[in-house]
Amino acid sequence: MASAPASSSRQMGASAAMSDRKPLPDGFVAALASRFGAAFQTSQPILAQHGSSEAHFATILPDGVVFANSTQDVVDLVKLCIAASVPIVPFGAGTSIEGNASPVNGGISLDMTRMDRVLAVNAEDFDCVVEPGVRREELNQHLRATGLFFPIDPGANATIGGMASTRASGTNAVRYGTMKDAVLGLEVVTPEGKVIRTSRRARKSAAGYDLTRLYVGSEGTLGIITAVTLRLHPIPETISAAVCGFSTLGGAVNTVVQSIQCGVPLARVEILDTLQMRAVNRWSKLDYAEVPTLFFEFHGSTAYVAEQVETVRTIAAANGGGEFSWATKAEDRTVLWRARHEAYYAAINLRPGSVGWATDVCVPISRLAECIEQTHADLARTTIPATILGHVGDGNFHVVFAIDPGSSDEQAEVEAINARLVSRALAMDGTCTGEHGIGIGKQQWLVEELGEAVDVMRAIKRALDPANLFNPGKIFTL
Amino acid sequence: MASAPASSSRQMGASAAMSDRKPLPDGFVAALASRFGAAFQTSQPILAQHGSSEAHFATILPDGVVFANSTQDVVDLVKLCIAASVPIVPFGAGTSIEGNASPVNGGISLDMTRMDRVLAVNAEDFDCVVEPGVRREELNQHLRATGLFFPIDPGANATIGGMASTRASGTNAVRYGTMKDAVLGLEVVTPEGKVIRTSRRARKSAAGYDLTRLYVGSEGTLGIITAVTLRLHPIPETISAAVCGFSTLGGAVNTVVQSIQCGVPLARVEILDTLQMRAVNRWSKLDYAEVPTLFFEFHGSTAYVAEQVETVRTIAAANGGGEFSWATKAEDRTVLWRARHEAYYAAINLRPGSVGWATDVCVPISRLAECIEQTHADLARTTIPATILGHVGDGNFHVVFAIDPGSSDEQAEVEAINARLVSRALAMDGTCTGEHGIGIGKQQWLVEELGEAVDVMRAIKRALDPANLFNPGKIFTL
Repeated sequence: MASAPASSSRQMGASAAMSDRKPLPDGFVAALASRFGAAFQTSQPILAQHGSSEAHFATILPDGVVFANSTQDVVDLVKLCIAASVPIVPFGAGTSIEGNASPVNGGISLDMTRMDRVLAVNAEDFDCVVEPGVRREELNQHLRATGLFFPIDPGANATIGGMASTRASGTNAVRYGTMKDAVLGLEVVTPEGKVIRTSRRARKSAAGYDLTRLYVGSEGTLGIITAVTLRLHPIPETISAAVCGFSTLGGAVNTVVQSIQCGVPLARVEILDTLQMRAVNRWSKLDYAEVPTLFFEFHGSTAYVAEQVETVRTIAAANGGGEFSWATKAEDRTVLWRARHEAYYAAINLRPGSVGWATDVCVPISRLAECIEQTHADLARTTIPATILGHVGDGNFHVVFAIDPGSSDEQAEVEAINARLVSRALAMDGTCTGEHGIGIGKQQWLVEELGEAVDVMRAIKRALDPANLFNPGKIFTL
Repeated sequence: MASAPASSSRQMGASAAMSDRKPLPDGFVAALASRFGAAFQTSQPILAQHGSSEAHFATILPDGVVFANSTQDVVDLVKLCIAASVPIVPFGAGTSIEGNASPVNGGISLDMTRMDRVLAVNAEDFDCVVEPGVRREELNQHLRATGLFFPIDPGANATIGGMASTRASGTNAVRYGTMKDAVLGLEVVTPEGKVIRTSRRARKSAAGYDLTRLYVGSEGTLGIITAVTLRLHPIPETISAAVCGFSTLGGAVNTVVQSIQCGVPLARVEILDTLQMRAVNRWSKLDYAEVPTLFFEFHGSTAYVAEQVETVRTIAAANGGGEFSWATKAEDRTVLWRARHEAYYAAINLRPGSVGWATDVCVPISRLAECIEQTHADLARTTIPATILGHVGDGNFHVVFAIDPGSSDEQAEVEAINARLVSRALAMDGTCTGEHGIGIGKQQWLVEELGEAVDVMRAIKRALDPANLFNPGKIFTL
């Protein structure tokens, strides 16, 4: 998903949680001021910045914001918060979609964006170590001279810590995996204020429980990430991107499924429906055909890319695909992928004054065409503008609704459509969230999806954060 | 690693644990006999089969063996064991290397090998669902008609459940990852006797804590795996294998490092030192040059394989590599990889009457040549036959010692060499175990490697198995 502008259209889960709030103890405020000086802030603009997110949830202000500069800052803050029973909620770029960093029980919003150093680049080992506040675009700038890149691209220029916390993925996941695959190891501050390292820097290990993967996707509820070791990849000799229109949405989906079945290692493959293409043309001032469309990217040696393209072109033609419009130069690819990344804004722009509401199901790819087609049919019954776009190679797609922020009727209507969509995905053995996480927005669906497995998650949370002060109220209720 | 013959050369950790043993309560025995009939066994040969493993640890007998036929069998056994405070230790093919399935506190060895059904093959989705007792070779036989294969290959014909439990990998991991990447989801019976599913069948998900990856590698200490959803891959159009000798071990290692840096997606690349090659020639009746050697496998389209081969050949030649000896036909590849898989037996066979003792460090690949060379120098000082072989693309290698089972001096000497080897790997930011797990053999090294992170593992264990009855005494002491 691209990032979404701040809004306050939905209050799900928030009002109940608000009642748990207590004012910060006086001694605690004094201790924070003494320890952190100007890095501890309680001014309204700063609270507001950390209480709103780029999603459709109500703004909930923290009681204070601490800007961390070091792991030691985090350790000291954790100890003060635990001693005073004050919640602590890590905050990165604020681009999460499910209220993942919303301080629903108040407390301290811990801003990690000043921890933005690249600590090491181990080019020979294809890895680097970064602080959690490094953003993915800046990391790739930093890496440019090494011939390596960090492939995970959720659209928004999110922080690496935030991306790890929500198990983000995005357009490159079909080839390069998600944050679960990209993170080799973490430094984490536990609720006891201990600094642990979840693994060494070896490419693989069988040394005990996989704590790396436990913290990735745990949304700050078990520990606070203070350093991330990331797996990198060589920049391919040739990168070639293309856009191809199709006569039907099903034809576009089937092209992707069949290409993957032929073993083509698509680096990116994104689907956009007709309305989304209209929105993209209008927003990005482009003139693509307004039909169901695939955006492709191929990586490899020049000969291997040519071979991949030939295979996919043949498959596309057999599925009602038109000509491929190519972008082989870096600047042309930038235009193409910027258009894709801004598709969310483009969709909202279809209706001036609206706010966005994004769904996030993911299904086995054999069910994807059916899932998209049924969803398309369901959307035909609403008058709310709704586009379909997604990471079709993973089976993950989003519906973006442009809703009237003042209309509770529209809110209820979208809730109902989303409920039908998630139920449809679960019936196909899919998930309610491919990449946005649970946050406060998907808690009832998590239980629907995984049943008593959620009790295992709760038991882990109680064991590692018995006071429930690390991003409380997220993923599940205790 | 290839599997190793049973032996009883080392008792590390076992004698202390033995003192925790209590006889099975009478009522419990009667309840098991009533519930499981002939699937509950206490005869000596069957106890012996489940008390010895293919490794260098002392035999420790369970008090009884239950052969599970279904998830319900596992649930019922778990409930009986928990009620009677009897340990329960899952057992697969018995090919683990670190005493992972040894019943150190006695109790019931739960044999999963009769749960060997392939429950579903979803070819369009590149996945399948299997019971834990399915073995990897039988799975690939079953899949043959689909054009798909399951790539993880630890050498031994292990069960899928056992491979998941130890986070196994092996020769294909450089291209296809380890069991952490291969497992899409699990059905698990918890110590409460609940049956949970850790994920749906979507290719990716951000739905809460990654329980799949938590159970993978947890060696049966948190839950008992009763079904595994596995990711499959298309059988490549062309598979080509080759053997290439080098004038130095360092030249062989550097060939691999440089090939990976050039983006060549090596499917397999194994290193064998001179003594290991001598052992292989003798054991498998082959006539390879007795020099440091790489075994390669390339996967892809015919043109793409040709391109990969050309790149690697050029790099090998610049690093002192000789001619490539090719195996393109399936039967020739079988001979080649059988020789590699039997390298462990071949090494032990260098010294009649000896037993094997295998190390398992993994380091960042930039340090691999140095780690292997220093280890080689250390080995020059022992008279115990010791070969080096490993999965060089991952930075993972093994030393196989052929030791006199009756000599405590040799045992102590190997312990000391292994201690130096693990310390060397840790100093290079590596791990004490690339793929064998911790079991009872690596517990002190796990603490050395991950420090207080092991306390987090212990907290999770206590939360999920408060009575400490699921494979107690493994990974760490509580």
